[in-house]
Amino acid sequence: MIWEILMAMSFQPPKGTCDLLPDKMILRGIIVDGIRRVFENYGYEPMETPAFESCPLLEIKCGEDIREQIYKFKDKGGRDLGLRYDLTVPLARVVASNPQLPKPFKRYCISRVWRYEKPTATRRREFFQCDVDIVGSPDPISDAEVVAVAADCLEALGLSNFLVRLNNRKILEGMLEYVGVSGDRALDVFRAIDKLAKIGREGVKGELRKIGVAPPASSKLLDLICKEGEPKGVLDYAKGLLKGITAAEGGCRELELVVSHLKRFGLPEERLRVDLSLARGIDYYTGPIFEVIMEGDEDVGSVAGGGRYDTLIELCGGRATPATGISLGVDRIAEIIERRRSLPVPRIIAKVFVAPADDSMRSEAVAIVQELRRGNIASDIDLAKRRLAAQLEYASKRGFPYAVIVGKRELQQGSVLLRDMTARTQRIVKRDKLVEVLRGLVTPKG
Amino acid sequence: MIWEILMAMSFQPPKGTCDLLPDKMILRGIIVDGIRRVFENYGYEPMETPAFESCPLLEIKCGEDIREQIYKFKDKGGRDLGLRYDLTVPLARVVASNPQLPKPFKRYCISRVWRYEKPTATRRREFFQCDVDIVGSPDPISDAEVVAVAADCLEALGLSNFLVRLNNRKILEGMLEYVGVSGDRALDVFRAIDKLAKIGREGVKGELRKIGVAPPASSKLLDLICKEGEPKGVLDYAKGLLKGITAAEGGCRELELVVSHLKRFGLPEERLRVDLSLARGIDYYTGPIFEVIMEGDEDVGSVAGGGRYDTLIELCGGRATPATGISLGVDRIAEIIERRRSLPVPRIIAKVFVAPADDSMRSEAVAIVQELRRGNIASDIDLAKRRLAAQLEYASKRGFPYAVIVGKRELQQGSVLLRDMTARTQRIVKRDKLVEVLRGLVTPKG
Repeated sequence: MIWEILMAMSFQPPKGTCDLLPDKMILRGIIVDGIRRVFENYGYEPMETPAFESCPLLEIKCGEDIREQIYKFKDKGGRDLGLRYDLTVPLARVVASNPQLPKPFKRYCISRVWRYEKPTATRRREFFQCDVDIVGSPDPISDAEVVAVAADCLEALGLSNFLVRLNNRKILEGMLEYVGVSGDRALDVFRAIDKLAKIGREGVKGELRKIGVAPPASSKLLDLICKEGEPKGVLDYAKGLLKGITAAEGGCRELELVVSHLKRFGLPEERLRVDLSLARGIDYYTGPIFEVIMEGDEDVGSVAGGGRYDTLIELCGGRATPATGISLGVDRIAEIIERRRSLPVPRIIAKVFVAPADDSMRSEAVAIVQELRRGNIASDIDLAKRRLAAQLEYASKRGFPYAVIVGKRELQQGSVLLRDMTARTQRIVKRDKLVEVLRGLVTPKG
Repeated sequence: MIWEILMAMSFQPPKGTCDLLPDKMILRGIIVDGIRRVFENYGYEPMETPAFESCPLLEIKCGEDIREQIYKFKDKGGRDLGLRYDLTVPLARVVASNPQLPKPFKRYCISRVWRYEKPTATRRREFFQCDVDIVGSPDPISDAEVVAVAADCLEALGLSNFLVRLNNRKILEGMLEYVGVSGDRALDVFRAIDKLAKIGREGVKGELRKIGVAPPASSKLLDLICKEGEPKGVLDYAKGLLKGITAAEGGCRELELVVSHLKRFGLPEERLRVDLSLARGIDYYTGPIFEVIMEGDEDVGSVAGGGRYDTLIELCGGRATPATGISLGVDRIAEIIERRRSLPVPRIIAKVFVAPADDSMRSEAVAIVQELRRGNIASDIDLAKRRLAAQLEYASKRGFPYAVIVGKRELQQGSVLLRDMTARTQRIVKRDKLVEVLRGLVTPKG
């Protein structure tokens, strides 16, 4: 037994990854189906790209931190490959090399990405992202739409108390100009600011010093950007401060438009914040940026994030093409729903366990289970030649809501026993009414 | 333009992989949804494991050919990792380290795997597998069930003219004993035989010679196993030949039981073949093995394959646990359906494009599209501020079946124009009846 434990321990999922056993996967399925439904309702079409890409592609505009996090390898042909760290760069590659796609091109992708990060309770090295992107529209209505999609996904999953944090890289660039930091340092500064929640103000100041932004400029910058609240107030503050810095003024106007479009899309204004310290950690953003957090579960981190990236497609070899998008994190959404127990999650997908009362009933039991399955009633049958009591114990352990007991006496009268495993009651049902009766029981109401 | 083409060419999907643009993905979605439905109807529960595993795990019983095909890399912590080459080994690891799972444990997994093979039209380095496995049942009824599941999946996708090829590793082992080849060479011999369709009889003889099985033994072996046909005839032949070789006789009996269970599960007998040359290329199989091909599309290769692997879980550090499973290949199924044009595949998932007739109608158009979306009618709206004619051209290019034109005159009368993009007709619909009317039009009949 010790040896068994040692052996089993030697094969665990690789560090930072995890298995999703059925008890976890059923909720995942509900989340992903709900998100996909909203994505499709908004007119996004599905697309998939390979799990790995050429390294030089992945390293375009990923920024130093992400560059360190890419899983890199050579294939046997000597190609430098890396597991994708997001779904946006592969999209940019596809758009760059498929100029025939009608624009705006709206696609969704629900798939895995990988980053070699320090694993925490809510941060893994392999995680599932659900992305929507709009390629080919420079208009702030598109930024607003992707945020509205994310908000609708959360609503659909019963997570209404979200907060959308908005900012614009152009405003941050204006802030740098205001405190006299060269625009060349902008991306380094943004990556430092992005760590504010993680390493605190002094930590960020340390990072800034490393890249040549010392106090008092760094303190002043942090003072200026630590401003967060309802959109109008914060944007008025930014506009006042940055008057005359044309790009930043444009950035403020863009955010005003994003906010007004969001309201038209139906987002309650009290769910919107402008947060001038929001920076996002990836280098490809060029305009509005956004993050969504859940009130009361801020410690999980953002459940969605994204922004506008108007130069990435050209950098990937395509025509200059504006684009914006957002990504929902399945793992964090699942974590929050599990914590809150806010969605009813069945223990098992199958509904019915068919149990032959003895060996002479097995053929008939197979006939019955096949009838149920072909009638779209998810059903299972004993495959271990167990006695009836052991079969029902197994059915109860797995959580089947119903069992059908196929006994000789009932069958001779053209019937079977239908057992409600939760109520622990049973009744006789005519064999030829069984599919109909069970369909009535297992079909979701409404 | 030349430069643009060169740049775009420099970022292609890595060799042996491909992008699945929406036109391909819509069919994929139909296939995967259909397969998942059948899997769930048969009582399998969803499970996911990481894309990569530790190399030593992957190399357990994979066999030499697969070992050469694993994408290997070290993570930054120096761990030896590899992309999984199938979904079975990760399952075995999970079962080994989770002895609490109730048995039989039935799980499905629909996900990607990777093998560094020579890419062909129907063989890629990244591909999608749909697996069902039954862990904990040694009974041939379980082998029959997984084959029945695969057959039902194909039926559900309109692919009824499949052929199931069956064999048993125990019969092949008996053949080796019969021709006087040591059992130690069995796995090497099976890998050679597995290449029969690919490299032909002389090729296999060459491979066999390399591993020390020279003529006349190799010729005799090939003569004996090249026997294929309806189950009873071939199994009678094998039983006659291998009389007295106990394990092989047991293997024949197992296949007889698999066949009789398959008939009870409802598979037409004329779809079943026993093919004594079927070997399967992976080392972990221990008993019945199976492959499914489509008549008329044999060149695509098998669309499903699997078998029993009764020792793998113990080799992964768990208790000795019998298991069997089958894997459907999404890519090949898609290829066949595309060739045959045998399923109706819509050009686009979204149904309705909402087009404001001019800029003053944009707010109202947003209100309408949000109403449709929240009513689960997949809809899109102009995001590019185009004029009406350009909007309708875009809607037609993308293939929307319907457009809603929001014009000032109609709106003043509480109406909009509903355009059938296929029939090129339009009619006036009351604004407050629009969701209802469109739901009637876009809901699938029956």
